Amino acid sequence: MEAISVFAPASVANVSCGFDILGFCLDGVGDEFYIEKTVEPGVHFKEIIGQKLPLDPQKNVAGVAALALLKQHPSDCGFAITLTKGIKPGSGIGSSSASAVGVVYALNELMGLGLSKMELLPFALEGEMLASQAAHADNIAPALLGGFTLVRSLQPMDIVSIPTPSDLYAAVIHPLVELKTAEARSVLSAEVSFKDSIQQSANLGALISGLHTADYDLISRSLVDILVEPKRAPLIPNYSALKQAALNANALGAGISGAGPSVFALCKGKENAKAVAQSMREVLESSGTIFETFVSPINTQGTTTTKSHEIL
Amino acid sequence: MEAISVFAPASVANVSCGFDILGFCLDGVGDEFYIEKTVEPGVHFKEIIGQKLPLDPQKNVAGVAALALLKQHPSDCGFAITLTKGIKPGSGIGSSSASAVGVVYALNELMGLGLSKMELLPFALEGEMLASQAAHADNIAPALLGGFTLVRSLQPMDIVSIPTPSDLYAAVIHPLVELKTAEARSVLSAEVSFKDSIQQSANLGALISGLHTADYDLISRSLVDILVEPKRAPLIPNYSALKQAALNANALGAGISGAGPSVFALCKGKENAKAVAQSMREVLESSGTIFETFVSPINTQGTTTTKSHEIL
Repeated sequence: MEAISVFAPASVANVSCGFDILGFCLDGVGDEFYIEKTVEPGVHFKEIIGQKLPLDPQKNVAGVAALALLKQHPSDCGFAITLTKGIKPGSGIGSSSASAVGVVYALNELMGLGLSKMELLPFALEGEMLASQAAHADNIAPALLGGFTLVRSLQPMDIVSIPTPSDLYAAVIHPLVELKTAEARSVLSAEVSFKDSIQQSANLGALISGLHTADYDLISRSLVDILVEPKRAPLIPNYSALKQAALNANALGAGISGAGPSVFALCKGKENAKAVAQSMREVLESSGTIFETFVSPINTQGTTTTKSHEIL
Repeated sequence: MEAISVFAPASVANVSCGFDILGFCLDGVGDEFYIEKTVEPGVHFKEIIGQKLPLDPQKNVAGVAALALLKQHPSDCGFAITLTKGIKPGSGIGSSSASAVGVVYALNELMGLGLSKMELLPFALEGEMLASQAAHADNIAPALLGGFTLVRSLQPMDIVSIPTPSDLYAAVIHPLVELKTAEARSVLSAEVSFKDSIQQSANLGALISGLHTADYDLISRSLVDILVEPKRAPLIPNYSALKQAALNANALGAGISGAGPSVFALCKGKENAKAVAQSMREVLESSGTIFETFVSPINTQGTTTTKSHEIL
């Protein structure tokens, strides 16, 4: 293989009760890579389309992830990367993670390394750290592996794939307001009430069980966040109205996607997800905020090859 | 039915990462009830065998649970109860819970109320509260329902049954030292590190997933308690040595059963559970502590009728 086209999807992290550890993968929205082998070694960004991001590989997430992989698995050839950003940075649906996982997936294929997706995660994590200044795998794991993933441990890395009920859909609304992950982190306190942490944990355990058994009612009852949402909601304009609109339209649950400002809802069935998205849209239309919405099944494939190119 | 014999099993609560919310049911150790209908209304304890407990129904757990049920579902007849305590109070394997669930199960059968086990739990909880001065369902739920149970919520009560891998066994050692639940609670702080609570939650989520998929390695990696064990371990003589002995004998994991002093280990296979129990026994034999041990499959039946008596 001389070149490869790869799709790296957006993802939703935290998922109400799963702060920092749970995430799921979206479909139809993500980053696209076209990467060609080059005679000259090293990583070279030919173009980043759709967003203004530095072409210096040490200064963008995909570059750092690629260099991390190449440090461990040196290559005689080099790589010329064209990245089409389908996800807006700072949206809260895993923009940096998509870039980090897409490039390591592509390089693994191009170099024929035969590494599993699980084995690729640590390299993607190095890229992700450039963006978030902290190691979190709750976006990179679902973006790469697909479905729902639980980060049991980062050191050593221990990621658990959780099954996806077939009728589960997501509706996501991204209000185009700026919200830095670092800001969203600063409102969280270092200590929490033990009682609240037990309640949060109970909901996570129940959500995991509900996903295993496709118990939509249990999933719905478990999508509760008592630790983070109360602190971050005030940072997101119209958050309460958006969440209420989703619930009024019979979403299973709704919450902040990642650190925000995107808001996600989980829904039973595509039609319900469409109605939930419409309900959330109406909130922002009346407020005058610019936004984009996504309706998506849970993407169980994760990052995929869209085309292999044998001859340049 | 004029009389009934019921077996109400012991149970292990907390289960490392599931403090206050997770529990599982033991087999072969528990309380036995023999309850006869009487012409005179009310609850009357004929005898409590095996332990010195008050016969006044308002002063023992089984009596309080029975009265809670009868308050909601009045009966023309009365009930004469003989309770054989197979579990020592203060052992940490759900002595009060077994008494609470056994009596409500028996009365439901005798009165032909047709309530489900889930519907019976709130009455058992009232009994349990007499013993622990707080509402916890992490012993009553597994003791009544069997298997592993997760308490997602107490108000409203929302209990999730988690599947039991068929080859999962428990080894439990009960050192005969006194340790009051209230004392064990007093060492816990009202606040915990948010980071630690996330790690604990990640382990719980992974444990729930491991139970669903019978992934013994994942169960093993998830049986970690970073919030409670460090604080309670010093209250239990030889705790570290007992846990290490269990792990040295290849237990999947080990921890404090309930509030202690019993120590439980989960094991793959009966032979391993026997070896683990033996390994823990040797620790206490060399220390001179008096103890009892139990080796048991996970009891998926919970509380059961052992005999129905049509004619007195």
